[in-house]
Amino acid sequence: MLHSNLSINNKGHLCLAGQDVCTLAKSYGTPVFLMDEERIRHNARTYIDAMREFMPEGSKPLLASKSCCFKKLYEIIKEEGMATDLVSPGELYTAKAAGFPLENAYFHGNNKTDSDIEYAIDSGVGYFIVDNREELDAIERIAEKKGITQKILLRLSPGIDPHTQKKISTGKVDSKFGTAIETGQALELCRYTLSLENVSLKGFHCHIGSQIFEYESFADAAEIMLRFIKELRDTLSFTTEVLNLGGGFGVRYTDADPVIDYRENIKGLAGVIDRLCCDLDIKKPAILMEPGRSIVADSGLTVYSVGSVKTITGYKSYVSIDGGMPDNPRYALYESDYTCLIANKADKKPDLVATIAGRCCESGDLIQEDVALVTPERGDYLAVLVTGAYNYSMASNYNRIPRPPVVMLKNGESYVAVKRETYEDLIRNDM
Amino acid sequence: MLHSNLSINNKGHLCLAGQDVCTLAKSYGTPVFLMDEERIRHNARTYIDAMREFMPEGSKPLLASKSCCFKKLYEIIKEEGMATDLVSPGELYTAKAAGFPLENAYFHGNNKTDSDIEYAIDSGVGYFIVDNREELDAIERIAEKKGITQKILLRLSPGIDPHTQKKISTGKVDSKFGTAIETGQALELCRYTLSLENVSLKGFHCHIGSQIFEYESFADAAEIMLRFIKELRDTLSFTTEVLNLGGGFGVRYTDADPVIDYRENIKGLAGVIDRLCCDLDIKKPAILMEPGRSIVADSGLTVYSVGSVKTITGYKSYVSIDGGMPDNPRYALYESDYTCLIANKADKKPDLVATIAGRCCESGDLIQEDVALVTPERGDYLAVLVTGAYNYSMASNYNRIPRPPVVMLKNGESYVAVKRETYEDLIRNDM
Repeated sequence: MLHSNLSINNKGHLCLAGQDVCTLAKSYGTPVFLMDEERIRHNARTYIDAMREFMPEGSKPLLASKSCCFKKLYEIIKEEGMATDLVSPGELYTAKAAGFPLENAYFHGNNKTDSDIEYAIDSGVGYFIVDNREELDAIERIAEKKGITQKILLRLSPGIDPHTQKKISTGKVDSKFGTAIETGQALELCRYTLSLENVSLKGFHCHIGSQIFEYESFADAAEIMLRFIKELRDTLSFTTEVLNLGGGFGVRYTDADPVIDYRENIKGLAGVIDRLCCDLDIKKPAILMEPGRSIVADSGLTVYSVGSVKTITGYKSYVSIDGGMPDNPRYALYESDYTCLIANKADKKPDLVATIAGRCCESGDLIQEDVALVTPERGDYLAVLVTGAYNYSMASNYNRIPRPPVVMLKNGESYVAVKRETYEDLIRNDM
Repeated sequence: MLHSNLSINNKGHLCLAGQDVCTLAKSYGTPVFLMDEERIRHNARTYIDAMREFMPEGSKPLLASKSCCFKKLYEIIKEEGMATDLVSPGELYTAKAAGFPLENAYFHGNNKTDSDIEYAIDSGVGYFIVDNREELDAIERIAEKKGITQKILLRLSPGIDPHTQKKISTGKVDSKFGTAIETGQALELCRYTLSLENVSLKGFHCHIGSQIFEYESFADAAEIMLRFIKELRDTLSFTTEVLNLGGGFGVRYTDADPVIDYRENIKGLAGVIDRLCCDLDIKKPAILMEPGRSIVADSGLTVYSVGSVKTITGYKSYVSIDGGMPDNPRYALYESDYTCLIANKADKKPDLVATIAGRCCESGDLIQEDVALVTPERGDYLAVLVTGAYNYSMASNYNRIPRPPVVMLKNGESYVAVKRETYEDLIRNDM
């Protein structure tokens, strides 16, 4: 199977974390997001342990909250001793409600409002990752008013295009995020930052994109950032304590994606950083990474019920399911690849090539095109694998469809982490 | 201005329905969806009156609920005597909660579950628009159990590509929706339908796509459908009472879109249908259309606050706002065009070309690229025009961002139709 937490039992049913996906779908209804708690913990520990073992003191991963955000998830990563990044006051509110220690939180975002900044300072968020000059001025002003000094990192763009999908590539010079090193604007911003009294510059952040399967792209970014760090030391006598390389490693969505060993990649990246710091003769900064997808994606899958199988003579076949772009907009947005299978016929050989169509009144509401499936019937369960990241967090109520619940699997048992939305929820704010 | 309900007052501020957009933004906060109630009513009346005047008896428009769905909207169109189509039990629940007369509702969807069907029958929904054989069998079974006869239309695909955007083109033979005429499958399905005892076939539905600016595409679809209707009469002695042509006319999002007169287009289409029925010697069916966008889009605009203006030397400029793809995913999904302007400097001449970036931690979170703007400052208001359709209804909580409120403007006053989501709302279903 695609990941080690997937298997097929003697009924021919797909299992996640050893539990029969069809039994779970029957009990919780469809669509349903299933998540394997132990896999989340395992992924978190892999990053934490490898970064502690191979990277400079203080190095650690932060969970990228945007990949998946609900209270129970913060409780799980808190127990694992993992830090987090937050991109909005809504994520902050959720982390706070879960009792997450906010001194371990890094507050991101290319457009923090004054009220966001005030809320985050009042909540004791450890670090702001500052995107731009206007934000810097606002933090300085608000921190002064409150009589505190706020620790910050500056988000810079290293000018790297890691050749991933355009929409998830973020390290290019031409980006809505951060300040460019190449243009000289980053150096100027650092100089300005060091002139401020109520912010304390601890280091820098960059993010080169998502779905990166080898550490060399991170190493390239690290080299640019470390050279900049050396330049800052030489010109402004500034010592950088923290270098946040953004993102994490890629995740295997289909057989076409490589199998990747996170620990070995972290070790490889650490080696490059070590050598670079040595060559450049600079103090090694603590390294941060921001894995989100690679913590939660392979913990999850989505189960739908099949409604119809439509074969258009001479054209193609469509399998309609009871969810779609409202719970998973990633195919509509990016044509993302997914592995799909009929969960109650997981041991059978595929005999149909079909497009998986969502239930929305919209042609683009597809989950995947031209996948090999066992021919399903109305009432069969269709599983879409590796949906733990950017599914629940991106879900909408388009077509007034309630969001599915998140059901967590642990030690052979299951529990609801997020309840299914009701119709009543949909009109709660309607006057 | 783009539409007649937009103007600029003596302060140089943008106005919607004669009301100062900046004053409203200050009072309700940003982001905020503003909607002009009188424009919605005017658009509804234009369709209702023209279809009544020019088309066969019983012809009428149905509001496409998916374009915008909340209780107050159903109250407005109920007062105008407009019918509606519904694509999900969530839309049905909302219409019901608003006291909408459900005998005037047409229930759509390519994947209705058994429980959806039962719920719609129990709610007294007038017509099902049946997508496929499995659904037909389920309706027959459930209607029999309940001892009723359910009125239905069959959704067919006429095999027309109106050359609109791929994702919003739905009338092609290769579509997840309906049953193809070209392949002979539609005729076969009709024959089967007429053999059933608990469904009563009233007619047919087709939908050729969105953003159609001239009636000729509808006329082409009508011709195919009317020829099929004649074939049915000749082969099965079946008389079609209703022909639903789906969709409505296009909406002007920017100056590049044509100005369109709905009444004249309906008149033109009616003329073609008349001639066709005459030539084919068939009884004129009542015509239905399903305008959504053209009822609500130009009633609305979204107001955001600007957070930062970032000019990357030698590259381009980004203006960041306090909303983005969570409240308007249409640029991320389809690269949809929008008109953007600085609402508090609406009388000034643009002096900047910039990309409007949302606040999400995602590179693809853009509202529009390379638009001419008056250079804004943090705190200025940016308005995105013509957002009444497919913005609120497609909104998500990605990045855990609460959805903006819908504020309705009427007779120089304003009221909240949908409340702003709170952080508390975001975690309501978290365990």
